[in-house]
Amino acid sequence: MDNKKQIFAGLIIIGNEVLSGRTKDTNTSTLASWLNSLGVEVKEVRVIPDIKETIIKTVNEFRKKFNYVFTTGGIGPTHDDITAESVSSAFNIEYDFHKEAYSILEKYYKPGEFNEGRQKMAKMPVSASLIYNPTSGAPGFSVENVYCLPGVPSILQSMLGGLKNKIVGGDPILSKTINLRTVESEIAKSLTEVQNKNLDVEIGSYPFFKAGKLGVAIVLRSTDQIKIDLCSTEILKFVNEKKIEVVGNE
Amino acid sequence: MDNKKQIFAGLIIIGNEVLSGRTKDTNTSTLASWLNSLGVEVKEVRVIPDIKETIIKTVNEFRKKFNYVFTTGGIGPTHDDITAESVSSAFNIEYDFHKEAYSILEKYYKPGEFNEGRQKMAKMPVSASLIYNPTSGAPGFSVENVYCLPGVPSILQSMLGGLKNKIVGGDPILSKTINLRTVESEIAKSLTEVQNKNLDVEIGSYPFFKAGKLGVAIVLRSTDQIKIDLCSTEILKFVNEKKIEVVGNE
Repeated sequence: MDNKKQIFAGLIIIGNEVLSGRTKDTNTSTLASWLNSLGVEVKEVRVIPDIKETIIKTVNEFRKKFNYVFTTGGIGPTHDDITAESVSSAFNIEYDFHKEAYSILEKYYKPGEFNEGRQKMAKMPVSASLIYNPTSGAPGFSVENVYCLPGVPSILQSMLGGLKNKIVGGDPILSKTINLRTVESEIAKSLTEVQNKNLDVEIGSYPFFKAGKLGVAIVLRSTDQIKIDLCSTEILKFVNEKKIEVVGNE
Repeated sequence: MDNKKQIFAGLIIIGNEVLSGRTKDTNTSTLASWLNSLGVEVKEVRVIPDIKETIIKTVNEFRKKFNYVFTTGGIGPTHDDITAESVSSAFNIEYDFHKEAYSILEKYYKPGEFNEGRQKMAKMPVSASLIYNPTSGAPGFSVENVYCLPGVPSILQSMLGGLKNKIVGGDPILSKTINLRTVESEIAKSLTEVQNKNLDVEIGSYPFFKAGKLGVAIVLRSTDQIKIDLCSTEILKFVNEKKIEVVGNE
């Protein structure tokens, strides 16, 4: 698009429960919105099974391809939680008790309750940096540009605050949404003309159905507010000419 | 796992709106549940942007790797709908008006309403098979093992019924869920022992938080009901010994 600084991320959603359809993944949306607000654009998301070789291969591919990589899931105490072990292998770092993580968990649980399952949550690449967990004790961790978070959405969300200062984004990605009471085919041609004249703005068109009525959300995205505003003006011009109702801007 | 016939699928979710976090993808869950019921296991999901080269590359990788590939999104009338064009390129098939699709859409709209935008929805690989759309006219399409569906969840869902007979699954993937009033770390060790003795059953452990109470869902998956039942018995044995409450089986 333009010459501004762009920073990209890839997300790896680890979990058979998402691939089986049992669990609806919401972490992608949470992480993507949060990263956008920090000026980081998510370029790819992969949902992969709890298979060690697949996790290692995907982590190694993504950490070379993107500025930041986030994994979700697989850092709990049970046998199917193999993310920490796999990330250790990907980086060729010893997988064992992380001293600080062990100490955090030991303090978190009552005496006698820090059992084998809970101790497993302190096992990770031994030289990893911790991502603190204000909700349930067990920390996430990062190695180089790879950040490993839990799969439970509320816990993941609670850990983002502490992570914010570690992520250095590019120019913030700005967006404007124009909601129209129309259908896509009525505006497709005019919208294409505006897109062709405004290549620095990404124009998305998304049909919606709210309160029994059809509509289209036009989403303009760019790092340049002036370009978004110019593009918006051109869209509102043809919208006005076609006598299409605008039902809200965001 | 065992020697039974396994059929695999890969899903490609096409859309900047999912990568930006604006839209929460629910099509993965819908398709995965539906495919599971037909004996097809989803092995990988990728969310990719509206970039032609990325779509072509991903489709070509997936169609060799999996028995079935499903794409969602990007088959509407606007400039950012580039799935049909990209799939044509991936298969090296001419991208032009599909006669039957054109005829369906021409009949669907009132005279004079079949405009340029709507006509674009009839453009696809010319030799594609159609996937009929009982909701909104515009059909999806398939080429060989690649099935292209729309992104709007309600429309996608309405098209699955007509697609059912085209998908030939393997042995149905059976599952049993045991919901326990406990936390993962209390059962991690015993569950690992059961998993190690029952390698033909995939045992997943998923914490939940419902009606203010914590719990763990143990999900057993296999194509063999007897093996699931044996595994379930072993789990209920240690659950009983530990005096953990069972709060429901599915």
